[in-house]
Amino acid sequence: MNPHWKRQFAEFGLVTKTDDECRSIVMVGDIEIGGPEFVVMAGPCSVESEKQLLSTAEAVSRAGAVILRGGAFKPRSSPYAFQGLGLEGLKLLKKAREATGLAVITEVMSPDDVDLVAEYADILQIGARSMENFSLLEAVGRSHRPVLLKRGLCATLVDLLRSAQFIIENGNSDVILCERGIRTFETATRNTFDIAAIPVLNAVSHLPIIADPSHAAGYSDIVPILSVAAAAVGADGILVEVHPAPEKALSDGGQSLTFSEFRSMMYDLESCTALRAHLRGPQLLVASGDAD
Amino acid sequence: MNPHWKRQFAEFGLVTKTDDECRSIVMVGDIEIGGPEFVVMAGPCSVESEKQLLSTAEAVSRAGAVILRGGAFKPRSSPYAFQGLGLEGLKLLKKAREATGLAVITEVMSPDDVDLVAEYADILQIGARSMENFSLLEAVGRSHRPVLLKRGLCATLVDLLRSAQFIIENGNSDVILCERGIRTFETATRNTFDIAAIPVLNAVSHLPIIADPSHAAGYSDIVPILSVAAAAVGADGILVEVHPAPEKALSDGGQSLTFSEFRSMMYDLESCTALRAHLRGPQLLVASGDAD
Amino acid sequence: MNPHWKRQFAEFGLVTKTDDECRSIVMVGDIEIGGPEFVVMAGPCSVESEKQLLSTAEAVSRAGAVILRGGAFKPRSSPYAFQGLGLEGLKLLKKAREATGLAVITEVMSPDDVDLVAEYADILQIGARSMENFSLLEAVGRSHRPVLLKRGLCATLVDLLRSAQFIIENGNSDVILCERGIRTFETATRNTFDIAAIPVLNAVSHLPIIADPSHAAGYSDIVPILSVAAAAVGADGILVEVHPAPEKALSDGGQSLTFSEFRSMMYDLESCTALRAHLRGPQLLVASGDAD
Amino acid sequence: MNPHWKRQFAEFGLVTKTDDECRSIVMVGDIEIGGPEFVVMAGPCSVESEKQLLSTAEAVSRAGAVILRGGAFKPRSSPYAFQGLGLEGLKLLKKAREATGLAVITEVMSPDDVDLVAEYADILQIGARSMENFSLLEAVGRSHRPVLLKRGLCATLVDLLRSAQFIIENGNSDVILCERGIRTFETATRNTFDIAAIPVLNAVSHLPIIADPSHAAGYSDIVPILSVAAAAVGADGILVEVHPAPEKALSDGGQSLTFSEFRSMMYDLESCTALRAHLRGPQLLVASGDAD
Repeated sequence: MNPHWKRQFAEFGLVTKTDDECRSIVMVGDIEIGGPEFVVMAGPCSVESEKQLLSTAEAVSRAGAVILRGGAFKPRSSPYAFQGLGLEGLKLLKKAREATGLAVITEVMSPDDVDLVAEYADILQIGARSMENFSLLEAVGRSHRPVLLKRGLCATLVDLLRSAQFIIENGNSDVILCERGIRTFETATRNTFDIAAIPVLNAVSHLPIIADPSHAAGYSDIVPILSVAAAAVGADGILVEVHPAPEKALSDGGQSLTFSEFRSMMYDLESCTALRAHLRGPQLLVASGDAD
Repeated sequence: MNPHWKRQFAEFGLVTKTDDECRSIVMVGDIEIGGPEFVVMAGPCSVESEKQLLSTAEAVSRAGAVILRGGAFKPRSSPYAFQGLGLEGLKLLKKAREATGLAVITEVMSPDDVDLVAEYADILQIGARSMENFSLLEAVGRSHRPVLLKRGLCATLVDLLRSAQFIIENGNSDVILCERGIRTFETATRNTFDIAAIPVLNAVSHLPIIADPSHAAGYSDIVPILSVAAAAVGADGILVEVHPAPEKALSDGGQSLTFSEFRSMMYDLESCTALRAHLRGPQLLVASGDAD
Repeated sequence: MNPHWKRQFAEFGLVTKTDDECRSIVMVGDIEIGGPEFVVMAGPCSVESEKQLLSTAEAVSRAGAVILRGGAFKPRSSPYAFQGLGLEGLKLLKKAREATGLAVITEVMSPDDVDLVAEYADILQIGARSMENFSLLEAVGRSHRPVLLKRGLCATLVDLLRSAQFIIENGNSDVILCERGIRTFETATRNTFDIAAIPVLNAVSHLPIIADPSHAAGYSDIVPILSVAAAAVGADGILVEVHPAPEKALSDGGQSLTFSEFRSMMYDLESCTALRAHLRGPQLLVASGDAD
Repeated sequence: MNPHWKRQFAEFGLVTKTDDECRSIVMVGDIEIGGPEFVVMAGPCSVESEKQLLSTAEAVSRAGAVILRGGAFKPRSSPYAFQGLGLEGLKLLKKAREATGLAVITEVMSPDDVDLVAEYADILQIGARSMENFSLLEAVGRSHRPVLLKRGLCATLVDLLRSAQFIIENGNSDVILCERGIRTFETATRNTFDIAAIPVLNAVSHLPIIADPSHAAGYSDIVPILSVAAAAVGADGILVEVHPAPEKALSDGGQSLTFSEFRSMMYDLESCTALRAHLRGPQLLVASGDAD
């Protein structure tokens, strides 16, 4: 590791690694996050209806996704706006899991909701806006579910690892990092996908890292190619938005893939499996005992 | 108002004003925030001890501050770091209020703490990291205390007004905005003080606006001059950090003023009272009926 | 000076000052830039016609400006767009100087133009886009005219002082710094006016510093109040755009003041003369021998 | 193309394409830039000596590079610093071309140097600091050499295409775009590699695009993996810094690859040839008549 990073990340002993240490694997049922497989998490931005969710779950499952995403509690910028289906949404996610075998990831936004969400979801998602909501981080730190921690819009990698370490210090070491784009002056994309964050985090930290190209791009046109890029640089998986009819989505339609675009993207990702295996090389492989 | 702003802020009917509307005044006891007086809120970053708090309260009160700031609950980036004195800190703030007559502002970080903090504090502060913590905004929206809403590190003014509107929609119209610097590439200061935000917000919104030059600057050297600038451009007051011995402060020492620096700054601010009165002019005056 | 700045600016011996050193004054004819007077430079973005320039020159002179700005050579983003009047523009500037007694500042964009522009102008302006055009900096470094060096859109203060030092190393020590806003994620203003840059530069450097609130704001609504702020924090003057009919300007109309808005702003600036004198205090005063 | 981009890039008719148009190929001798082959340009930041340059040229040529980079004129932030070897450097580049058959790319910094540099180099490089130096763009626009135009540190894609169009309007249509990282708040990398810029530019423009992972990253550790990412998202090639002994380099040593690291990277890039061919697909293929 170069001395600049050594200095910058020195204070995060629980999440950084020495050069010869292995990377961590977070188990979600029998899915390994951080292992040799590239993990695809896909689904709608918001759970809108049984039909919408189940059709999406089936479509993404058939195409190769192993985890279903879907928001039940949404950041509500107006009490009059669509706020997600709440408990009803969680129940639909459970139903979709039973129907498809997909594991489920959904966002939790309030410490008081952690137990409820943990009952229904396999992974608790901390949104970008909540990355430094320490009350919430403390609550998921006491939970027994793996946590996917999204990087804040203007969080440095140092800030991200500080929050990851905070969750671990509160008792939960199953933390998955997520790069989802940062805020810059560029407006051609919704955010600026900081792809270098992935190899930097892989160099300094043992935690798995997932890319969210949908929020990074903001436009579905380039989501598939950014997913390929994420796989090529060593991300452990992606989190992407898929919707049966993006133009009718209640949120984030412009960045959601159709079923057919998703299938095509999965096919592209297949093509880079060999590349990925080659690039990760032996030094990135996890000791076999680690995942047992 | 120019057409660009009219377009940008169109969706926030509750916080924006038409050209001939008055500005709002938020009453804190008999202190008017948004009225003709420039309101100074000062005190330590964290409440550390009775002696520290009371000596600071007396010093800032004697120099002309009318509101005491002090953190009881601190953003805890490590469970092992100093996390604030919690309830004990709130009690000390109450004690300082009784001793000096200063009103009290302190940060609330979790929805569950709102009622408790509201019992002890006159103003609930929402920190920059919490500006889009909608669970928390909802909770303070249901409270009966005025709320000071700090701009997030990379929040646009549109984002800030969206959060302000969200609090009002939840029932609490006593919202005070706070500009505290944004994150940019410049590293000579901790953040970049976006001074233009103050006249822009005064042009588009009727809500009072307070500047926090301590967090914007990060270095106490320039806090007094930035306070003067804030007064000159029409801020309704400032929130500044003062500590009996900044070099021994448990947090933010480098940006805290000593008692003597604070007194000297208050003297500078006096000198700009006439300027301020001149600049605010008649169009900024609040109709007398408004505050009754 | 705090240790952080001492470290950051350590390498720029020619432009930084020790604590007890005086500030530099740049003489433009008998106008002192960096002295006790606040220097107002005003005029149109581009020189468009004799009538436009002379009427503006007379208006700003009568209101108290001492230097006339006006672009003869413009950054030409298309060879088909208005590129400035070139030599014809320079001649008009000279004519306006003769008619009003105003000194003249205009931008030079190419090393080959430096001698020509120096013949007609009293101050050579280096635009934000040219701040790191070292060929051009070298050429103005060999010239005998004072140079106003604008900060680049994403230049740090360290970058700005490096360019200033480069000009001085090439032989010209009459360098005036100019803060004109930096590029950030905020879109309510054209750029983000980094007002803290002014006191930081005053703390670390002996060079005079001018603010350009027109380019920082991008909207004329807030140009006057930002000018007042600049004066309040210790800028040595301002550079503002004024046009007889902003809505018909060939460039930058939205940020140009009308004659009447300019007069009103000058009146506001008068009101802060006393404040400014008070705030600059003895430590900022230049030893009387210095300007002789 | 999505409507957002259609709107944003509407004014650049010469560099944008309609959906069914082909991409342009820029010929450098018999090397096609923008064609099916991924073009590797490599070499030292600065030409330092005959031995340094020739050994590097041979090493990168043997490993598969087809173009040699090397700075003869360097942005000189101090007249006392190493400013490049100038004409001597150009002669060494010519010698290296004769010895290895590599084409040569080198930066030109001043309009007056364009003819001289064009005599020795096959591609004229416009550095990030010069992206809006319109005098220089005009001069290379009149030259007969292909131009590689680097994106400025805080240039939007709109700004980049405006400068590209300006060169074309001045007569030279052989323009190659280059993404080299933008300035953001993140400090773990020197700049933030805006990888999404590559597919966005490929969607809106017909010009070839090259990635410069060395300047984007600033740390050689992640240069190879970012090169792979650039290839995966459809860049037409890369520009990378290689030095026989990076720790002794007169400039940019920390981001330069050793010969052995470069060879290893070329081997990784080979592995993604098939992926690249698959991903570019038929719609990205250039009509065969185009390059004739």
